[in-house]
Amino acid sequence: MHKEYKPYYAVIFTSTQRENLEGYIEMAKRMEELAKNQPGYLGLESARNDLGITVSYWESLDAIKNWKQQSEHLQAQLKGKTEWYNWYHTRICKVEREYEFHYKSN
Amino acid sequence: MHKEYKPYYAVIFTSTQRENLEGYIEMAKRMEELAKNQPGYLGLESARNDLGITVSYWESLDAIKNWKQQSEHLQAQLKGKTEWYNWYHTRICKVEREYEFHYKSN
Repeated sequence: MHKEYKPYYAVIFTSTQRENLEGYIEMAKRMEELAKNQPGYLGLESARNDLGITVSYWESLDAIKNWKQQSEHLQAQLKGKTEWYNWYHTRICKVEREYEFHYKSN
Repeated sequence: MHKEYKPYYAVIFTSTQRENLEGYIEMAKRMEELAKNQPGYLGLESARNDLGITVSYWESLDAIKNWKQQSEHLQAQLKGKTEWYNWYHTRICKVEREYEFHYKSN
């Protein structure tokens, strides 16, 4: 990298779901809203087929810790375990470098 | 973490595609096959809606560099730029910690 690069953090959340997803979509939307208002939030990307992948980006490990402990988010995590998820895996990562491609970007 | 943790690396590849995807699926399958045979490969997860997310896991930065420079993969990357992708973003990350949940796992 030629420019100075400031590392940041990514949380990779992969999951598979159970059959009864009542309340899940509303909760997911609410969590995305709440995350956006957390200090240190940088962005979020997600896609789901059978496997779901959500990656959220954060300025620091502290920002991730604070979000993990946010009270409404704690309730959502509990519902995730008791009701919605069959399995999930959370990875806390430091983004060390990156590159981007745009086709015919202006 | 109570147990000793050995960090590894994740490549987060997010993308949007163009309309004509001729040859893409075959190439994606071939690349997954090839990646699995690369030294240091640990795994791969992917999902796509409008946005696609593929995360591959590797033992070291060298393993990632070798995969990036693998000759058939270089050709695929070129086709990705000239034909398939509208936009992509690649992030090289160090996985610092992780946790997993299994519902009623035995």
